[in-house]
Amino acid sequence: MKSLKIAIAGLGTVGVGVIKILEEHSAMIAARTGRRIEIVAVSASNRSRDRGIDISGYDWADNVLDFAARDDVDMVIELIGGSDGVAKELAQQSLSNGKSFVTANKALIAHHGAELAQSAEDNNIAMRFEASVAGGIPIIKSIGEGLAANRLTKVYGILNGTTNYMLSQMEATGKDYGEILEETKLLGYLEADPSLDLDGIDAGHKLAILGSVAFGVKTDFDNVYMEGIRRIKLVDIEYARELGYRIKLLGISSLSDAGLEQRVHPCLVPKSAPIAIVDNGFNAVVVDGDYIDRTFYEGRGAGEGPTASAVVADIIDIARGRSGPAFFVPIGEMQEARPVSISDRNGPYYIRLHVEEQPGVIADITAALRDEDVSLHIMLQKGSEQDGTVYVIMVTHETHEKRVMNALDQIDSLSSVIDKPLAIRIENL
Amino acid sequence: MKSLKIAIAGLGTVGVGVIKILEEHSAMIAARTGRRIEIVAVSASNRSRDRGIDISGYDWADNVLDFAARDDVDMVIELIGGSDGVAKELAQQSLSNGKSFVTANKALIAHHGAELAQSAEDNNIAMRFEASVAGGIPIIKSIGEGLAANRLTKVYGILNGTTNYMLSQMEATGKDYGEILEETKLLGYLEADPSLDLDGIDAGHKLAILGSVAFGVKTDFDNVYMEGIRRIKLVDIEYARELGYRIKLLGISSLSDAGLEQRVHPCLVPKSAPIAIVDNGFNAVVVDGDYIDRTFYEGRGAGEGPTASAVVADIIDIARGRSGPAFFVPIGEMQEARPVSISDRNGPYYIRLHVEEQPGVIADITAALRDEDVSLHIMLQKGSEQDGTVYVIMVTHETHEKRVMNALDQIDSLSSVIDKPLAIRIENL
Repeated sequence: MKSLKIAIAGLGTVGVGVIKILEEHSAMIAARTGRRIEIVAVSASNRSRDRGIDISGYDWADNVLDFAARDDVDMVIELIGGSDGVAKELAQQSLSNGKSFVTANKALIAHHGAELAQSAEDNNIAMRFEASVAGGIPIIKSIGEGLAANRLTKVYGILNGTTNYMLSQMEATGKDYGEILEETKLLGYLEADPSLDLDGIDAGHKLAILGSVAFGVKTDFDNVYMEGIRRIKLVDIEYARELGYRIKLLGISSLSDAGLEQRVHPCLVPKSAPIAIVDNGFNAVVVDGDYIDRTFYEGRGAGEGPTASAVVADIIDIARGRSGPAFFVPIGEMQEARPVSISDRNGPYYIRLHVEEQPGVIADITAALRDEDVSLHIMLQKGSEQDGTVYVIMVTHETHEKRVMNALDQIDSLSSVIDKPLAIRIENL
Repeated sequence: MKSLKIAIAGLGTVGVGVIKILEEHSAMIAARTGRRIEIVAVSASNRSRDRGIDISGYDWADNVLDFAARDDVDMVIELIGGSDGVAKELAQQSLSNGKSFVTANKALIAHHGAELAQSAEDNNIAMRFEASVAGGIPIIKSIGEGLAANRLTKVYGILNGTTNYMLSQMEATGKDYGEILEETKLLGYLEADPSLDLDGIDAGHKLAILGSVAFGVKTDFDNVYMEGIRRIKLVDIEYARELGYRIKLLGISSLSDAGLEQRVHPCLVPKSAPIAIVDNGFNAVVVDGDYIDRTFYEGRGAGEGPTASAVVADIIDIARGRSGPAFFVPIGEMQEARPVSISDRNGPYYIRLHVEEQPGVIADITAALRDEDVSLHIMLQKGSEQDGTVYVIMVTHETHEKRVMNALDQIDSLSSVIDKPLAIRIENL
């Protein structure tokens, strides 16, 4: 039995999980692949940190780039992270030197996926990144292989477990954003750069990858519209519930004659939608296609086990001899899609205004909406807060994004309006 | 570009769907596989039936077995159905003659999967059956490849769309079983032999396949416990709802030190469980593994589009050069698992009794339960029916299946008990 020799770059949570699986399930994996998976070397920024596992049996490299040059390495596993720097160099050098390449790095693939896939293709070597999106769900394989008979039209989902946890906790505990943010920090759930979670960037990376695999278009992260959850207040969650909705941070990508739409932002989704009950650290993805209609996938989004499971699934696939293009079509067949701007969105909106209670406020607000032709479906105002201010909640009929934003700019300039008005897009999925 | 030449046996809904996809998406599929998929011949029991598509461009075979012998056929697609007879012969002959073999036939794989996989292995040829379970969900690929890093412990789900439709409709319309059965017949949703749906046999076939793929054990359909939905009354659905549950026909398979458990029967599942809100023609599968924890998949269970999509996904996989064992491990590595009997189940039970309202009835019933050590958690009795009879609904604490069934036998022999008592297993998933 010829072994497959791998080198692991990065020994954080995921790297440790990969080693655990490969050690614990070595016989099972050998039976499934017909090959023994052999870890020949590991590397990380800190050699001596206690990781709860013994790595003394593996060769240590101070410089991960050595992996790309070693003759005794068949495959490099990149678990370092970051869109550029050493992760990118390692990818490029590994592929150029004919090492197959597996990564969990969403930033790397979102930014440089097409370029790296080209290099893999040129060198006739496999590159895989199942773990980069929704670790617990084999969503990239499902889209690229399981649903390959379909022309896919839309893919969307809850792609960031941390913000989903925060929104779930706000609803469950009745605590406001700031308090839950502090708790989430203490739990260690936030990325080292919290903006990646809170501003929707992590979800944006994942969405760019999903859209690319689903539609056969080159990853275009620069044109992903991203808006995070920082402006969501408890009052929004409570009014949403009263209106029959829940608030979720969704990534939505669709390809139509108009072009490629890619957007990450909080949404009001109907309580009864399957995605509405996906809570806490879970991820979920919905894929629409012309023959399957709609399919739905849910699993844990992060953590040692699920992400490591996805990395090892890629290793197993390659050990089984599966090759083929990283994005499931040759780079030459991938389209460059025209981006659709968020300002072209049509749909209903939830609007939250925080105003001083004084005569004429509502008249001014509704005049601003009328001037932009935005018609209201629901308006709620339920008495004042202790400080004499009042929340005004509105739900519009289907309308054009630009009109809503223009109206909100006008409303924001009114002296009686306190906070910047907030619009949350309603997605009747 | 070398074409892949296929022959399609069976031109019912699924066969027609396969032709539609291959015709409509031929360019897309060629881009994805690097090969043109060419339909060289078709066959069905009736040549002239109007199928809504033109099949005059394809060679017609009066005898499907000819496909296995033709030099110009690389792959045979079997969409005839039935566990034996011509479907099995076609499978055997195709594999022996080195044709790759794709089927949607759950009965064939549930009964003869291991034998056919052995033949595929002996002839070094691919056999695939993604469409045999939950067409709209790529569940076999997800389990066998996407989750291959895990030791899987349990797989369960809603595997039969027709009975799920019937249960959903009973709840939605407040009509009783008999009326919904008639409506379902008129809609053409039932198999030609309705027992396959109503008695859980179709779900049993699918469960045997899922368990085999998930646990690497040989399909053992003979040891699947099957109980259908014929005894479910509207009153059960209503009481279940009141108790915080919904009734679903589940297939449940698990592998433990005790052996392989495989059972299909109606269950009370908590309203809040993801599987509880899967309605009408949808299927859903939950897979538990040691590193992924829990993953959930939902999609359309049947119909032209989803099932044909799964068949074509298999064709694409093989066209891409993917081979490997049909059950994802070589037959020699597959275990023969000791079956666990349904009578070894432990858990809570919902019990529905229909009795004449007379003194001493409840005393006799509770005495029978006491004699078997079955303790009650809840008991509901809400006034009499118009005919003076009364429903008594009980929920037990966790107990042993044998004890419940013994107690119900005793209760059944009481003169005041009208219908045969019904127990529905409660699964707190």
